[in-house]
Amino acid sequence: MKLADVPTPALVVDAPIFAQNVATMAAALPGPRLRPHVKAFKSTALARRLAETGHTGFCCATVREMEGMAAAGLGQDLLLANEVLDCTRLGVLAHTARITVAVDSDQTLDAAVAGGVREVLIDVNVGLPRCGCDPADAGRLADRARALGMAVRGVMGYEGHLMREPGETKQAKVEASMAQLLAAHEATGGDVISAGGTGTYDCNPWATEIQAGSYCLMDTEYVPHAPAFGNALSLWTTVISVHPGGWAVLDAGLKALGMDHGDPTVVDAGDCWFVSDEHITFGTKAERPVAVGDKVRVLPAHVDPTVALHERMLLVEDEDVVDTWAVDLRGW
Amino acid sequence: MKLADVPTPALVVDAPIFAQNVATMAAALPGPRLRPHVKAFKSTALARRLAETGHTGFCCATVREMEGMAAAGLGQDLLLANEVLDCTRLGVLAHTARITVAVDSDQTLDAAVAGGVREVLIDVNVGLPRCGCDPADAGRLADRARALGMAVRGVMGYEGHLMREPGETKQAKVEASMAQLLAAHEATGGDVISAGGTGTYDCNPWATEIQAGSYCLMDTEYVPHAPAFGNALSLWTTVISVHPGGWAVLDAGLKALGMDHGDPTVVDAGDCWFVSDEHITFGTKAERPVAVGDKVRVLPAHVDPTVALHERMLLVEDEDVVDTWAVDLRGW
Repeated sequence: MKLADVPTPALVVDAPIFAQNVATMAAALPGPRLRPHVKAFKSTALARRLAETGHTGFCCATVREMEGMAAAGLGQDLLLANEVLDCTRLGVLAHTARITVAVDSDQTLDAAVAGGVREVLIDVNVGLPRCGCDPADAGRLADRARALGMAVRGVMGYEGHLMREPGETKQAKVEASMAQLLAAHEATGGDVISAGGTGTYDCNPWATEIQAGSYCLMDTEYVPHAPAFGNALSLWTTVISVHPGGWAVLDAGLKALGMDHGDPTVVDAGDCWFVSDEHITFGTKAERPVAVGDKVRVLPAHVDPTVALHERMLLVEDEDVVDTWAVDLRGW
Repeated sequence: MKLADVPTPALVVDAPIFAQNVATMAAALPGPRLRPHVKAFKSTALARRLAETGHTGFCCATVREMEGMAAAGLGQDLLLANEVLDCTRLGVLAHTARITVAVDSDQTLDAAVAGGVREVLIDVNVGLPRCGCDPADAGRLADRARALGMAVRGVMGYEGHLMREPGETKQAKVEASMAQLLAAHEATGGDVISAGGTGTYDCNPWATEIQAGSYCLMDTEYVPHAPAFGNALSLWTTVISVHPGGWAVLDAGLKALGMDHGDPTVVDAGDCWFVSDEHITFGTKAERPVAVGDKVRVLPAHVDPTVALHERMLLVEDEDVVDTWAVDLRGW
């Protein structure tokens, strides 16, 4: 099928840009140096491409993602890099896949034990106000986990507050953040120091593995902070209305785009004015008139919540649809 | 099942508030005076409640919504209140349901004819920079539609730019906007003058039917502009991490919440700091400490894109789950 014939709105992946993004990352962080984060693309088909590139351990953010990855045969080493208080479904998975879950409190550790999970990482707060125990508490949690019969694989800590730090100060701030994680690791033991993301993949040599996911598809907000990677993801839309007052309307809106990072970018045709549930209104340009029926490419501002709104992504090369990837890891 | 036992995150509807919202609207706009807009809730189960209340004609924003409503036996009078350039699927539906589609250009009219749709409304721009023809062009489009063998049911025009207008000026501005629609209707003929929304349901007596949908479930952004209706919709979450630094983390985030109207409201437990893909970080209050495992209610800022992220809604009364409504109209 030709891209021009695809019903809109459709989420589209530029195959060459995607391949280049994957190759760039695999060259920098080959094989197990990268633990790709599934939350950024929620697709086992895409994850399989990464596994074929040598990254066979994955991060997930939800139990549903863990289940889907295991069911797809991608369960060689799955880390739920998130806290969860009911580990029953993870315990079931642990019979057929290698399952590790992050814990940052007695309650989440107890949940892992009760659910039948056998391996944990101690999640350590390294500066982002979100999950993770105080670094000083990591050793105690690890000791308690081992006393309860768990294997402690090491630590994780997400320096998410530094992903958009200017280049000249990023490395130093990441080093200070990782110093907290390394101190915690001294106390916990284990082989794994898991951290990082697309914004710090090239300036975090302290982690044994980097949890990057956005790099595969990217978005307009992230490109300035990780310029080695290109926008592979776009929304393919149709102009459904053109007004002589200087605007036109596309057939995609809030239900097709994650909006927390702001408006999407209308490529070439004009400037986004506002987004409604099923519409994008954009200002047209006299030098580039559009007509009803024209196809327009739109770049999302945030990849993760955009993908979560779609049932599938179409892989496109030279205007041909060459594959369809189900977004099969949505929900919880 | 008790609400306390529901796996989180879960989208929850307060049954008494929902019932009150529906009753309030049905009293103001009984039966066919209201054409509920399905895009706000995307659920045939919820739509069926409205049909039982007497509102048997519905608006949709997507072809998928039209198909789902017809398949659910709710196809007595379905209006696609949106422009579409491939009406093939609508033409198929027209054999089993009453299908009307909005048109605002020769191209969208031609698409309706080509797809086998037999009834149209002329969509007129009444001030919101989005779809709709110039009011002066409505008569020409209607004449052309009839010449092509279509039935022209009348006009529609959405005064969406006035939904949040202050009360003291809203009525006058709606009147001016509707004057454009009435002038267009003079030129088109037909029985239907379809307009309005939850924000103007009580100050638009010019339309023969009002296209409101948000009133059923509501959101924090809309309540000040339509105070007759209450927040029936909330997200049910669990505290997964508590930090001594003064914050805690909930197990729901950008993939569970439409964010275009800003952050959600964390009920009672604290103030939302920021939302990540699968987390809400909120500032805790000394006078109301939270513990890992506590359940917290969160109010979305925008109902429509929030619902579109979920597979189901749970109807809850007195902390009991009394029904499950599939969100079965997602996608396109």
